[in-house]
Amino acid sequence: MPHTIHDKKKIMTRIRRIKGQVEALEKVLDQEVECIEILQQIAAIRGAANGLMVEVLDGHIREHLGVDDLTTEQRQLEVEQVVGILKSYLK
Amino acid sequence: MPHTIHDKKKIMTRIRRIKGQVEALEKVLDQEVECIEILQQIAAIRGAANGLMVEVLDGHIREHLGVDDLTTEQRQLEVEQVVGILKSYLK
Amino acid sequence: MPHTIHDKKKIMTRIRRIKGQVEALEKVLDQEVECIEILQQIAAIRGAANGLMVEVLDGHIREHLGVDDLTTEQRQLEVEQVVGILKSYLK
Amino acid sequence: MPHTIHDKKKIMTRIRRIKGQVEALEKVLDQEVECIEILQQIAAIRGAANGLMVEVLDGHIREHLGVDDLTTEQRQLEVEQVVGILKSYLK
Repeated sequence: MPHTIHDKKKIMTRIRRIKGQVEALEKVLDQEVECIEILQQIAAIRGAANGLMVEVLDGHIREHLGVDDLTTEQRQLEVEQVVGILKSYLK
Repeated sequence: MPHTIHDKKKIMTRIRRIKGQVEALEKVLDQEVECIEILQQIAAIRGAANGLMVEVLDGHIREHLGVDDLTTEQRQLEVEQVVGILKSYLK
Repeated sequence: MPHTIHDKKKIMTRIRRIKGQVEALEKVLDQEVECIEILQQIAAIRGAANGLMVEVLDGHIREHLGVDDLTTEQRQLEVEQVVGILKSYLK
Repeated sequence: MPHTIHDKKKIMTRIRRIKGQVEALEKVLDQEVECIEILQQIAAIRGAANGLMVEVLDGHIREHLGVDDLTTEQRQLEVEQVVGILKSYLK
């Protein structure tokens, strides 16, 4: 999916950070911490997921809709995919 | 902006519906209604704004990125604009 | 709903600002402006609706759950209402 | 934080499900899958984080604001915490 090694590293770093946040949340739940801390950690995970989505969508639009050498059919297919994911995500 | 008369009518209908919702909220605030009703009306306005965004973005991506006859420079400019609006909207 | 004159004025100001934004969007749609400008105006309306929701919710929680002199039944009813609106809004 | 064993199990199940989704995303990134599949998985993780937030917030409001035996000061502190987390989350 990420179209360059560089992109892939950036995205993998974001994914691993989210994984670390989720694992930290798992541990915290076992300890008697303040609820607010748990609520803040969940908000951070959602924020990180949003950030990951924007980064991957950015790369996807550039790679798939920003290129000249597509047939009309290919371009329409790419448009449908991007519009489809946006509709479900923005709902 | 909407590239066809048909699109423009659809979008104008959505805008006027939101305007009606906001005007209704204005009136309701003057009457002693249940708070929950006001909170629900605000949630509906936000939902309608989301729906309007998806509709306009859909048309924009089709009209500006779904066309073949763009120069490389034009296409890059269109990509930057779409990615830019998504970044601020998904933040 | 807003429980003080002061609150009501603040909320009414926000509602009228949103109304102004929607009316501006209505006008802009009739003029041949850049799509991006319309997308940005819609994003601003959604942001304003979010801001209005937070303000009204803030006042509602303070007035309805921040008071001591409720019966157990009244308090449970208030909790159900707040949790209900949050569930639909955060969905 | 979760105030009953039952709640804690429910929340831990959600957290582990999100962890599984993130780990699956990590693996998928290494394979040459369709971008849309990755975008859909990210959208699912954000949705799951939203669901987790609603569940924890629901329990928190019930446990901390739905109880009668709080002093005025305690109740104000609880209100401030809930309103604070909502402001940052709904922003």
